[in-house]
Order: sequence, then structure tokens, then C-alpha cells
Amino acid sequence: MDIDFIDSLETPCIVIDRHKAEKNIARMQEAASRAGVDLRPHIKTHKMCGYAGLQIRQGAKGITCAKVSEAEVMADSGIDDIFIAYPQVGNFRLERVVKLAGRCGRLILGVDSLESAGMLSQAFLKAGMRGEVRLEVDTGARRTGVPYEQAVSLARAVDRMPGLKLTGIYTFKSLVLQGTPTKDIKAAAKEEGEMMARLAGDLRESGIAVKDISAGSTPTGTAVAETGLVTEIRPGTYIFNDHMLCCEGWARPEEIAACYYVTVVSTPRPDYAVIDGGTKTFPMDILLDTPPYYYPGYGLVEGHPHLCLRRMNEEHGILESKTGDTGLHVGQVLRITPIHICTAINMQNTVYEYHEGKISRLKVDARGMLV
Amino acid sequence: MDIDFIDSLETPCIVIDRHKAEKNIARMQEAASRAGVDLRPHIKTHKMCGYAGLQIRQGAKGITCAKVSEAEVMADSGIDDIFIAYPQVGNFRLERVVKLAGRCGRLILGVDSLESAGMLSQAFLKAGMRGEVRLEVDTGARRTGVPYEQAVSLARAVDRMPGLKLTGIYTFKSLVLQGTPTKDIKAAAKEEGEMMARLAGDLRESGIAVKDISAGSTPTGTAVAETGLVTEIRPGTYIFNDHMLCCEGWARPEEIAACYYVTVVSTPRPDYAVIDGGTKTFPMDILLDTPPYYYPGYGLVEGHPHLCLRRMNEEHGILESKTGDTGLHVGQVLRITPIHICTAINMQNTVYEYHEGKISRLKVDARGMLV
Repeated sequence: MDIDFIDSLETPCIVIDRHKAEKNIARMQEAASRAGVDLRPHIKTHKMCGYAGLQIRQGAKGITCAKVSEAEVMADSGIDDIFIAYPQVGNFRLERVVKLAGRCGRLILGVDSLESAGMLSQAFLKAGMRGEVRLEVDTGARRTGVPYEQAVSLARAVDRMPGLKLTGIYTFKSLVLQGTPTKDIKAAAKEEGEMMARLAGDLRESGIAVKDISAGSTPTGTAVAETGLVTEIRPGTYIFNDHMLCCEGWARPEEIAACYYVTVVSTPRPDYAVIDGGTKTFPMDILLDTPPYYYPGYGLVEGHPHLCLRRMNEEHGILESKTGDTGLHVGQVLRITPIHICTAINMQNTVYEYHEGKISRLKVDARGMLV
Repeated sequence: MDIDFIDSLETPCIVIDRHKAEKNIARMQEAASRAGVDLRPHIKTHKMCGYAGLQIRQGAKGITCAKVSEAEVMADSGIDDIFIAYPQVGNFRLERVVKLAGRCGRLILGVDSLESAGMLSQAFLKAGMRGEVRLEVDTGARRTGVPYEQAVSLARAVDRMPGLKLTGIYTFKSLVLQGTPTKDIKAAAKEEGEMMARLAGDLRESGIAVKDISAGSTPTGTAVAETGLVTEIRPGTYIFNDHMLCCEGWARPEEIAACYYVTVVSTPRPDYAVIDGGTKTFPMDILLDTPPYYYPGYGLVEGHPHLCLRRMNEEHGILESKTGDTGLHVGQVLRITPIHICTAINMQNTVYEYHEGKISRLKVDARGMLV
């Protein structure tokens, strides 16, 4: 990325390098296509209709969302194959889901309990419709998802519910358990694929027509695809990448397509300087359930390895120097690599896009939605 | 707050109890008025024009902002006495500052270095205007602010700069240093007042007409006001309060005017349940530069002291039970006390307001601004 556009930026901001993002999209699409699985990227990372459209045009089967409010925004932009990979609970949510199903070519919904499936069944029945659902299975992440050993019995119950059509199963296998990231991604992906394929087999034996077996996040996505045991992967972060994915061995620093630009606003003493972004700019979900000191800081200052962003207030980021001297001056613009790009973009109403020598401003269309 | 409006909420969301907020505003205003100091609340907490207007109508002298983009939004709503308590660095910022000064009754700007003051001086000179500035002094927080011992010499230089009019000094004295919160707020406030009064005296002796001595955040605000040593306080969080302020001894739980409502979406096993908000709903800046386990969790589940929100993904909040049994069911709505309300509201495009039995939706007008 050229840096001659710096003068046109208002900081603190995030700049996306469109060319790099396109290469990242192509790389994941090629891996999925080569393995013969569908790619259904999670839009949680970018939340922008333009980038979702780009993923579709490059070959993605459809998209994944976490919220119906986000799915609505995506459907408005013309995307018509959407999976909301989240249990739909609450009347306010069900009403919007049923409405969306009525105007979206294909809408698939997550279910992971008798209760949530029952509510969904009632909502679709009431509307005289039939909703397509996938069963979420817990393969070790301990968040949503029916416990693995109970999946067959829940699937049977859901399959019998009127108003619903069970067509698949899905899982998210966290790489971080009890605060310790898995080192062996291939082994984790193999286990993920095998667990899902075994369950699909059991369900088919029970007479349930499981068509889609969906798994895989960004770090595990290509490895899960290569097992040949699933039909679909749902990575999200790969579109931009970040420091976390470099740590996990999936991306290289030069493949990171989004970074911060900040301005040094104060250099009160030699050993620290202040930049114009703090906790309202840099997310602090560095590594879930792990103390922040596990990571080098809330962002990495490019070209200044001696600087550490470890202390912030709401609009103040304090860069401390390991050498006792920051070497920075007031007005200097710095480039900072995000630790986790999904929550970083989620803080912004707009981001900049750098494309073929030009810089423009994009709205983060689906950010800040509730439902 | 009544809970009969729960059915009308879309979760996850923040609900503000207008009546409690009004009482909080009145309480701080009375304390300031009683001590004979100006109250200039920081709008960083609410970022809503309506609440800023309410603070003014109840007696606040003006408002404090961190960003010129936020100040513009406030000025658009008719507020005409604004202090941007932040060094104004970067041409993109200076242009907007000068423009705003031209249309705002009184705009005061922070300066804390020769460099930032020089840039501001040039920008105002070019526009044929004179900008009112206050010198930010570091009284121990080690973020922006000229080092205390260099304040007199910087003030002299700023006072001589064309295009600027130095009328005051200000500081933010953090209660949290090296990760350890100060226990004795009165003592901290006394020190803050004494340092600022001593500096003001030194400056006046040098012939600089220091009119305003501004200090005090929410926990220290009333105590600083009572020292009689400052002319203005700038608290922000007091309007809504939060768990952090209860820990600091400033607020009582019943004075917290803003809380989360979330829905339980999954109860896969007895010992944990999942709610529909995660790291994109609950901020994680629990206590700056302190590991998250210092605090009980990312929010406190009201009425369920055995539940702990310690693990999150982007849209998943995992409530773990200390007793091994959450006792929750799918569809249950929970009320969660925010740890830090300023960064919590900053995640939301809109919040609900509960007022005289009615619930309505308010836009968080000035959130997500860059500059």
C-alpha cells in the first residue's frame, strides 16, 4: 500500500487495502473450490454489503451472519442465500426472521435446543411457511450448540417439527480453550471434520436427510475443507486477516489488508507518547479469557518495534518505549496492525478503502444492529 | 424501573432510566453549585444531544468533548459553550476546529505542547481569528498534559503566540495508576486541587491571566469542587453511573441509570448458558492495564449472583454458574449492570430510554466519529 494518501485521512481510522482483500478472498475461494466444498463466508468481519457482494461474485455459495438485523441489511443489497448461524430466540427476533425468510431466496437458521426450535416452528407455522434450519452442535467450544452426545435425539425431534425443514448440521470449534490456543490446527480440523461426518452418518441412518455439513473458521477452514468430510466452510476473518491470524500461523503480515492510521498528539516525556485512539478505537478482546499481557499490546506499531500500546483511556492510546525513548514527534502519523480485525471494524461507522491509488470512505453497513 | 416494558425491547440493548439520570444530573449540579464552581460535564458518556441539553438546562456552564467531530454534533443541537479537552493535532482536525470556532459562541481548545499550540496558532491566524485555549497539565496520569514542572514555561510561550488566547489550565488526575486504584479519593482530590491552584498562582505571578482552573472526573469531582481551589469540574460518567463507580465508592447500585437487557439463547449444559451479547456488546476495558480477572466479569447479572460473564465471543456471552447450575431457561431476559458505561454506550447506535412508563429509542448522536 502506498502511503502518499496519508494527508487525506482523518485519524484515528481504519484503511482497507482493496487489492489485498481481493487476493485474500481469492485464496480462500480457491482452497474451498479445490477441496470441492462450498464457501459461505461470515460477514461479521467486514459488515459491508460491497465486500459481501465481492465474496459472492468470486464464487461464495452465500453468506453467514450472526444477527437477523445484519442479514436484513445484506438481503437489501441483493444477497439471497443467507445462513444466520445463531439460535433465534425472542418474539422480536422471530418476527423479523419470518419476514426475512419471505423475501430472501434461501434463509437458513440455526437451532440448538428443543426450546429454540419449538419457537421457530411456531413462528413459521403461524405465517404458513416452512423454515430451513441447521442443527448447531458443540464440538468443544462450550458456547451455543447442542452437546455432541445429545445431537441425534435433538435432530430427530427437530426433524418432526412442523414448519421446519432440517437440512444440515454446523459447528464452530474454537482454537482457544481454557485460555490456551491449539497449536496443531491440522489435527484440530481433522477432529472437527470427523466428528461432524460421524454425526451426519448417524443422522442419515436415523432417516434424517442431512445435506449440509458446515464447519471451519478462518484458521481451520482450509484444513477442514481438505479433510473431505464436510460440505461447507464458514470463515470470516480471512478477508482482511490480522495479527491474531498471523500468530495462529494462517496469515503472513503482508496479507493483512486492514490497518489503523493514528496521529501522535502529544509527546510529554521521552519514554511515552499519546496517539488519538484509545479504548473507543482499539478493541480489547485480545485473546478471549486470557489476560491482556498475553499479547504484545492492543495493536502493533509498524516500523517501531520498541513501542508498546499497553495503556489506554477512551480517546488516549499511550505508546510506551522499551528503550526509554519513543523517537516520535507531535503530528506524526503511525500505521498500527490490528490484533483482531472483526471487533476493530465493529467500532467504526465508516472505514477508508484504498483502491488503485484512490482513497474513499465506506459505510460499515451492518454495524451497531441489536437483534 | 418497572419491568413491564421488557416485551417491547429488542435485545441485546441498553436501557436508560431517564428519571434516575435526571436525579444524577441534579446531584452533581447541586454539589458544584454549592461549592461555587462551574460544572462542565463531559459528554463522552452519553454522546446524546438530548442529555447534553438536559445538563445545560439544569445549570451546567457548558460541555466538554474529546473530539471536534463530537463537538460539531453538539453545536448543531444548539449548545454554544464547548471545551474540547484534547490537543488538536493534524490539519484535518485544525480545519474543522477553526470552522467550529466561527459558529460556536465559545469554543475552548486544549493545548499541551509547543508543537500543538503552534499548529493551532497558525490555523487561527490564517483564518484571521483568535482561539481560546487552556493548557493541559499532567498531575500524575501520564497521558496527555505537559509535565507539571514544565507548565509555567510552556504557558508563557503559549500566552505569547498570536491567534491564541490562554484563559485557563486543566488536568485529569487518574485514580488508577500502575494498575492500582487509589482508595482515598478525598486525598487525591485535595492533591489535585492544590497542584492546580499552586500552578495558577505561579502563572498569575508571571502575568498570565488564568481565569479557569478545571479539574475533577466523576469520582473526584465533588471532592475537588469542595476544596475551593478550582473554578470548574468536568465529570462525565455520573449521569448514568456504573459498577466501576460503585467500586470507587462514588455511586450506589440504585443510582445506576443505565443497564443492559439480554436474552438467554441457549442452555446447552447445566453449568453454563449463552446470552445474545458478546464482545461486540460488552466492552472489555474493565480496568485499564489490569487483567480482566481483577473484576467479577464483563457485566453483573442482576438477581443472579452465582452467574459470571467471564467468557465471550463476538456475539456470544457465556454465563458460567459458580454452583454448577445456571437455573436459566431459553428465552429468559436478564438485566446486566455495566462495568463501564462510557465504552458500553459507545458500542451502540441507539439506546432505549424509559421515561414515565414509556419506552422509546434514542440515537447515540455523536458515536463513531473519527476526528
